[in-house]
Amino acid sequence: MESTDQLGLSIAFQEAQDGYKEGGIPIGAALVWVRDGVADVLASGRNLRLQKSSATLHGETSALENAGRLPAEVYRECTLYTTLSPCSMCSGAILLYKIPRVVIGENANFRGEEELLRSRGVDVLVVDDEACKMLMARFIKEKPQEWYEDIGEMH
Amino acid sequence: MESTDQLGLSIAFQEAQDGYKEGGIPIGAALVWVRDGVADVLASGRNLRLQKSSATLHGETSALENAGRLPAEVYRECTLYTTLSPCSMCSGAILLYKIPRVVIGENANFRGEEELLRSRGVDVLVVDDEACKMLMARFIKEKPQEWYEDIGEMH
Ligand SMILES: [Ca+2]
Ligand SMILES: [Ca+2]
Ligand SMILES: [Zn+2]
Ligand SMILES: [Zn+2]
Repeated sequence: MESTDQLGLSIAFQEAQDGYKEGGIPIGAALVWVRDGVADVLASGRNLRLQKSSATLHGETSALENAGRLPAEVYRECTLYTTLSPCSMCSGAILLYKIPRVVIGENANFRGEEELLRSRGVDVLVVDDEACKMLMARFIKEKPQEWYEDIGEMH
Repeated sequence: MESTDQLGLSIAFQEAQDGYKEGGIPIGAALVWVRDGVADVLASGRNLRLQKSSATLHGETSALENAGRLPAEVYRECTLYTTLSPCSMCSGAILLYKIPRVVIGENANFRGEEELLRSRGVDVLVVDDEACKMLMARFIKEKPQEWYEDIGEMH
């Protein structure tokens, strides 16, 4: 992995860990603007379903929300890092803002809309990161009900 | 249109009008739970990009956020009403929660992911409502920059 990707994913994972410590669903994300090889971390965020009773603040949408209003041009030079494969909503947010590249920590615990993203021209890299996998697997084992609620599944 | 659909769309339009009065992007939505023919308005919401510098609170996500945490079963008996054809992010949210039916005020000012929704089995009804069309067209004429930012387009 390139150093920018290591940085982006480590920020996303830190958010996931912070979420876990708060009792939340441990999924984090970071939005990084890459210009002329220079990386600028615009924002990071984490899933806030349990902390804020939020139905829309997943890791990825939380990072986008924390970045605030951005011109369309900026998103088109960004990479979005996320610890877990993005769900339909978060993938849709990536498509809305035409973010060209997504780096995913793992898709073993949940497989989101990677194929839809790829079919629309998004560059999707799955890292298969052990730390991301272990943290998420631990949460799902501890709080399955909350996890299934997050992905709209009955349990 | 059925009376439940008239109710749902009128609540969404009221949100859009309230947004316009606040200086915001006039798109509103309502989440209605229909059980045994009885309609229960769970929440409504409006686009808050300009009011809250929000990149993720569109009309539809705002309504979902205002509804708070809901069990997966509830979404599956809901209809989402929205004044404008849902963008990729909001369509993704509909798919995440498996909302089976979406009623859209109009798609003349913006055509979102109706085909994706239909391809995944969502029942999509476009009403072609004159009031929704006029309000949105008025806003786009007045604040084109803000509108294009909302849909991630360069202007
Ligand atoms: Ca903000
Ligand atoms: Ca809430
Ligand atoms: Zn998501
Ligand atoms: Zn939207």
